[in-house]
Amino acid sequence: MAADTPSIPKGTRDFSPEKMLRRNYLFQVIKETFEKFGFQPLETPAMENLSVLTGKYGEEGDQLIFKILNSGDFLSDYRKQGASGTLPESRQLLPLISEKALRYDLTVPFARFVAMNKGALAFPFRRYQIQPVWRADRPQKGRYREFVQCDADVVGTPSLICEAEMMLMIHEVMSRLGLSEYRILLNHRALLKGLALTAGLEGQEMAFCTAIDKMDKIGEEGVVKELEALGISQENAKNHIQSISGQVSLSAFKNRHSSVSEIQTSADEVQEVIRLSEQMSMPAGKIEFSPTLARGLTYYTGCIFEVKISNAQMGSVCGGGRYDDLTGLFGVPGLPGVGFSFGVDRMYDVLEQLNLFPEFLGSSTSVLFCSLEPQSLPYALKAVSEARAQGVKAEIYPDEARLKKQLTYANQKKIPFAVLLGATEVESSTWTLKNLDSGEQWSLSPQDAIQHLNAHKIHG
Amino acid sequence: MAADTPSIPKGTRDFSPEKMLRRNYLFQVIKETFEKFGFQPLETPAMENLSVLTGKYGEEGDQLIFKILNSGDFLSDYRKQGASGTLPESRQLLPLISEKALRYDLTVPFARFVAMNKGALAFPFRRYQIQPVWRADRPQKGRYREFVQCDADVVGTPSLICEAEMMLMIHEVMSRLGLSEYRILLNHRALLKGLALTAGLEGQEMAFCTAIDKMDKIGEEGVVKELEALGISQENAKNHIQSISGQVSLSAFKNRHSSVSEIQTSADEVQEVIRLSEQMSMPAGKIEFSPTLARGLTYYTGCIFEVKISNAQMGSVCGGGRYDDLTGLFGVPGLPGVGFSFGVDRMYDVLEQLNLFPEFLGSSTSVLFCSLEPQSLPYALKAVSEARAQGVKAEIYPDEARLKKQLTYANQKKIPFAVLLGATEVESSTWTLKNLDSGEQWSLSPQDAIQHLNAHKIHG
Repeated sequence: MAADTPSIPKGTRDFSPEKMLRRNYLFQVIKETFEKFGFQPLETPAMENLSVLTGKYGEEGDQLIFKILNSGDFLSDYRKQGASGTLPESRQLLPLISEKALRYDLTVPFARFVAMNKGALAFPFRRYQIQPVWRADRPQKGRYREFVQCDADVVGTPSLICEAEMMLMIHEVMSRLGLSEYRILLNHRALLKGLALTAGLEGQEMAFCTAIDKMDKIGEEGVVKELEALGISQENAKNHIQSISGQVSLSAFKNRHSSVSEIQTSADEVQEVIRLSEQMSMPAGKIEFSPTLARGLTYYTGCIFEVKISNAQMGSVCGGGRYDDLTGLFGVPGLPGVGFSFGVDRMYDVLEQLNLFPEFLGSSTSVLFCSLEPQSLPYALKAVSEARAQGVKAEIYPDEARLKKQLTYANQKKIPFAVLLGATEVESSTWTLKNLDSGEQWSLSPQDAIQHLNAHKIHG
Repeated sequence: MAADTPSIPKGTRDFSPEKMLRRNYLFQVIKETFEKFGFQPLETPAMENLSVLTGKYGEEGDQLIFKILNSGDFLSDYRKQGASGTLPESRQLLPLISEKALRYDLTVPFARFVAMNKGALAFPFRRYQIQPVWRADRPQKGRYREFVQCDADVVGTPSLICEAEMMLMIHEVMSRLGLSEYRILLNHRALLKGLALTAGLEGQEMAFCTAIDKMDKIGEEGVVKELEALGISQENAKNHIQSISGQVSLSAFKNRHSSVSEIQTSADEVQEVIRLSEQMSMPAGKIEFSPTLARGLTYYTGCIFEVKISNAQMGSVCGGGRYDDLTGLFGVPGLPGVGFSFGVDRMYDVLEQLNLFPEFLGSSTSVLFCSLEPQSLPYALKAVSEARAQGVKAEIYPDEARLKKQLTYANQKKIPFAVLLGATEVESSTWTLKNLDSGEQWSLSPQDAIQHLNAHKIHG
């Protein structure tokens, strides 16, 4: 057979064992936190019916959905329609040759699942979901066509305790990862809506939010231009931007807009989330009211939040918000909820930037057993089994090879210890335990060696 | 927006939290075992270039690969080719509108990864991979279009220690899951090849194996017919089948075929795998020499094995074998290896059949905190935080609701304990801990209650 030169699709990645160990460490911290707060895992298929996905992400989103070709003779439906010889446009042919697509996010499949299984679920329904999603975006640095999302949502309750618990989950994840310099920016969609109304932009609230959302990217001037384009005066736009820019306290903001009821109510909700989270032991000062925070997604209606890491060069690493009605799309209205998502690729990069990954991760091998000559192999086979029986992650080098080659292998795999077994060890029923970092070695009884290996506790 | 009636594609599944907790328990046992033996995780993209996949699974396999439509105006390449108005056949159009596909198994992506990263890997390279694969098979009971494979492979060594370690990993997984009635069937491809030669089927060894592989499905008579179709006499076919049917000891089999060197050598390898595994503490009698075992995959060249559960109605739940050269397909020859795979869907069903899943799984919520009146909410918020801070998986019911409603929720989620907090508890600084199974309840200090919850150790 001819040898291909293999490659992987643009915008996708292989995760080598070294990267996987680190990714799994990150996922594990997030999972354990979700579970500590009563969130349980859900998984949905990678493929969804196209009808479930289309129309949910806007026109631009629809085009970024990866469609799956019907299997077999996919043109037969087109022919059955009695089509003439003329070739249709791609968008006319599409519905005839594709019925399924890869999921674009985890939110729509979640809403679809809740709508389909409403009768069987305990409400408020808390779930987390950690699965890949696919987007036919132009690949670029930090943007992938296949990437993992890490979502947690509660549906079936308007209680702000849920928002407060999300603040606490963020605190727990960030603290455990060593990212103590995080800040949570908190705002409310109805507050932005109130501002849009005072600017005379009734009916254009979403466009107002979209413009505000670009503050980081295009600056104040840019946002002023966008607001002018919506039909308000430059002065009006400038005033509005000024009223939400810079550090502003919640009470000062409330006073400034004391006549706008939407702003009063929503600012009170923001206040309440902070108060509840502090009652649940959230450290004071980590949550910042941020009236310029808008978040792009159209379905948010209540509190919205994002997390930034002050000592890293990175956009937000986590975000979420409350929605009134997500499952209404699928015929099940009246289920308010709140959800959030960790940006694991960005968090991974931040942890590398700040050198915060533990050096040894618990899931990697602790020790390599090396037989120094063919005669000591049976002793080595017995030895590695004894170690494993007592919970040590252990390998034996399977081929006859010089010690140097075996230790090179250990070194490449970052295995911290070796046990060397030759004639001397067989005769004295001992193991020679070698620390591969310091080079020190000791002659020990098997039991002492195992105790030493188990005591060398490693993270993860 | 109009409400769709949502559904999921045929042959795919949602995994509810209840199922996910059980699946994660199963995956966790497998992962921990892989890692104890030095296997490290690898993940590859769901999408592979079509050229990587096609031609690797036979013609039938190629048709079962899910192809992904190129994004955007997918017909433009077709038009650029100056094609006339008439549409071509599906198979002619396919390469013009699709460049990527969903992976069909984990073996080919693994070989592709090794070929692409050979210089950076420590050999022998051990990896495990637990990811979904997709096949456009006709969906039927127990056969899905999206399902998870659970593979472990070592490449870069001919050492039979690797096979022996796989026997031990199977033993460990089966024992931990409570499936002690398992049997490992062991055979060797070269032994079957030797038999084919003695039957006069030189050059048709694979067809011989394929026929033998159907023994379970079509019986001895059926296999005789298939062998006759290959061009040997009925008598010859019957003799050959007789020589491998029923319980036969390895030594008897060797004696019976003492003149065939392929059979002698491969039977010795089978013997050696059993011997090595017993040196590594494999219980005697769990591995059965099974000369009718053939396994369908063409790339196997050495030992092959399958696992059956004697007390369950189910085909094999695990299988694997040795190959000479997997990465040769991608231009990197000379890397022999051995791999195996757990059939997690079947194992899940067996565990349900035999009622072997632990009742409480460690990752589910241990306790629901219930505030009995609005005034006790602050006390309850503090309480749930204290429990979580000491590692208890805990929830608080977020809405004001009667106790009955809160306990119904706990019951639906199979939460084993509740902590009831009202005026009495606030005044006396106690918690009322209730066992939701027995109905018993105790008034305890928070510290004692937490200790009780942490002592109620749960599996998983």
